[in-house]
Amino acid sequence: MSLIVKKFGGTSVADAQRLNHVAKLIVGDYKKGHDIVVVVSAQGDHTDRLINQAAEINPDGASKREMDVLMSAGEQISASLLAMAIEAMGCPAVSLMGWQAGFKTDSNYTFARIKRLEPDRIKAELAKKNVVVIAGFQGINQYDDITTFGRGGSDTSAVAVAATLKANLCQIYTDVDGVYTADPRLVTNAKKIPVITYDEMLELASLGAQVLNSRSVEMAKKYNVELEVRSSFTDEPGTLVKENVKMEKMVIRGVAKDTDLSTIYITGLNDAPGIAFKIFNRLAQHGIVVDLIMHTAESHGKTDIMFSIKGSDCTEAIKAIESLRDSLNFEAVEHDDDVAKISVVGSGIASHPGVAAKMFEALYEYGISIKMIATGEIKLSVIVAAKDADRGVKAVHDAFIQ
Amino acid sequence: MSLIVKKFGGTSVADAQRLNHVAKLIVGDYKKGHDIVVVVSAQGDHTDRLINQAAEINPDGASKREMDVLMSAGEQISASLLAMAIEAMGCPAVSLMGWQAGFKTDSNYTFARIKRLEPDRIKAELAKKNVVVIAGFQGINQYDDITTFGRGGSDTSAVAVAATLKANLCQIYTDVDGVYTADPRLVTNAKKIPVITYDEMLELASLGAQVLNSRSVEMAKKYNVELEVRSSFTDEPGTLVKENVKMEKMVIRGVAKDTDLSTIYITGLNDAPGIAFKIFNRLAQHGIVVDLIMHTAESHGKTDIMFSIKGSDCTEAIKAIESLRDSLNFEAVEHDDDVAKISVVGSGIASHPGVAAKMFEALYEYGISIKMIATGEIKLSVIVAAKDADRGVKAVHDAFIQ
Repeated sequence: MSLIVKKFGGTSVADAQRLNHVAKLIVGDYKKGHDIVVVVSAQGDHTDRLINQAAEINPDGASKREMDVLMSAGEQISASLLAMAIEAMGCPAVSLMGWQAGFKTDSNYTFARIKRLEPDRIKAELAKKNVVVIAGFQGINQYDDITTFGRGGSDTSAVAVAATLKANLCQIYTDVDGVYTADPRLVTNAKKIPVITYDEMLELASLGAQVLNSRSVEMAKKYNVELEVRSSFTDEPGTLVKENVKMEKMVIRGVAKDTDLSTIYITGLNDAPGIAFKIFNRLAQHGIVVDLIMHTAESHGKTDIMFSIKGSDCTEAIKAIESLRDSLNFEAVEHDDDVAKISVVGSGIASHPGVAAKMFEALYEYGISIKMIATGEIKLSVIVAAKDADRGVKAVHDAFIQ
Repeated sequence: MSLIVKKFGGTSVADAQRLNHVAKLIVGDYKKGHDIVVVVSAQGDHTDRLINQAAEINPDGASKREMDVLMSAGEQISASLLAMAIEAMGCPAVSLMGWQAGFKTDSNYTFARIKRLEPDRIKAELAKKNVVVIAGFQGINQYDDITTFGRGGSDTSAVAVAATLKANLCQIYTDVDGVYTADPRLVTNAKKIPVITYDEMLELASLGAQVLNSRSVEMAKKYNVELEVRSSFTDEPGTLVKENVKMEKMVIRGVAKDTDLSTIYITGLNDAPGIAFKIFNRLAQHGIVVDLIMHTAESHGKTDIMFSIKGSDCTEAIKAIESLRDSLNFEAVEHDDDVAKISVVGSGIASHPGVAAKMFEALYEYGISIKMIATGEIKLSVIVAAKDADRGVKAVHDAFIQ
């Protein structure tokens, strides 16, 4: 007998039919003698509909505290409905909201972090042989106010439960049946990855693979929770995410694309010491995370700096840079939103110089020009024009994955 | 400066437009310097939609515990949206769910009773000058599980807050602008009642006037909370419900109709001592509340008993009576669902014998025959055929109210 945590996303619980299907999966494992904790997202597009209702009430943006009260109702509905579906199959079940399940968070409304999970209630319900259905994505802060964890937050709830209760496995059920070497909608010969390390998964997640939420993978790595990404629509085995994956040779795990970014070009800077510090410090003060950076070589005492950021930070970043105009005395600051980042991910990329050459060659053969390059321990990223992104993913995937 | 509790029903908060209108009412009173606590129901038919979702999942009826989790999400959504609408008008507001607001109840899921209201959080938010928007209809039991109060439960929430915080006034906003002498859809010359006692309101509420929930009126009477029933759609003053209403003469407050009832006839009973006790004790064991009772005079050692109950209790009541067939040795038990009760309500009816005569005369003139009669301190009820109910209300109203 073991403890299994199962997380179901919005499409997996979208309607009565899907809820019954998911309940059947759960009851099947319960009858095998496992203890089961289920974490559930809001049904289908319910969260979006609630956000639209709020936008109609206050187009300038409602307070984040009230947004969290509103949005958390979505998981409350899906959790109770799923508990009902399980009960209807003759299996005891109980739904718990974030505040009942013991999720204590900070007060960063709409993007709260879990400070600790107090699992007494969950344990007590498991001891009573109940399937415990937890409303994902939500907790309470020190004032007993409802907080939510941001998009993909139910993954984080599930991993937190698995970590705290030392579950044998944390299964993340989604509408795809695993992690692929590239987006299968884009690259038809993309292959499912049977097993992948946390770090590789983290790179793929943060690079836009959109299967698993980055924070949940970080937490799984930290507490060594074995994850399985699988589909609630098929019986196929999914992708296992764990610490040690035996490898004989350097393996490219996958190719990811991210289009939610902008590049900023600051040109004609006086090449004085500390200019890079000034720029990136100011951006950090504005809460802007900088991804790739290129600093061109000095010429006639002038230099250029380019970097990429999240697309939604662009306006704020330009404002921050403009506020430095007097002290930096640059010529111009420009931005480009029509860009995309393509990355290959795999353990050991850093020690294989051939990877970069192969990637650039593949892009070159498709006539795609590279705007910026960045390398890391297990990834290699390039920025290209947005229009070239999908072809670029295909080109790189074909070059590396047979 | 005073404390005002305002409760808004589902139609008053049905959409963004209505929410904004209601927020304007609230902000208006806040700006006059009042402390405001708002209690809110779920939007429009949202509760019904949630109940339908549950019925789709489990047609045999989901567990009441999970029903309460599900249904309470409706008020969570409306409370947060209303808080947002108030904030959007520049007025500080905070939404509180039942468990945050301190509503402690018994564990009678879907029809829980408030054991106590611990008002610390509400008081703290008022001290911070927030408008406090409470999700009505919900609380938690001793296990920290969500409970709901049954239909009309938000009225009870509002009165509980008003009683505990000793509010100066508790305003119940609904889609009618007060309590009328009869249903205005039925009797065109029905008049709004400016002021009415708790007892009179209680009779009107329990007799089917459907404006105020009976439990909330009982609680208001117990804690002497002054209620005002008014419309959120107009600025008209509503109906005040309070303890002492000065009267010069006997006043008929209103005429009510109730069609949710059945009558049961047990005929050919042996007229032995204790038969009435046996019957009504057995019904009480089944949780069936008996309203009117008629016991016909004995003739040749045989007697009949007739009584009225809620329509939904009819099948259960017949079963309960049949289980007594051996010990009571009656001839037959029959029931009639096509009946209605018409009642006139007013303080001092008992001491004015002329009221009964006038009511019977009015019905007689319209050719309506009376099946059963019951009198009380402040009401006089008759049971008639359902088809005669609307004409009967008109006849009685015309006779008493000019």
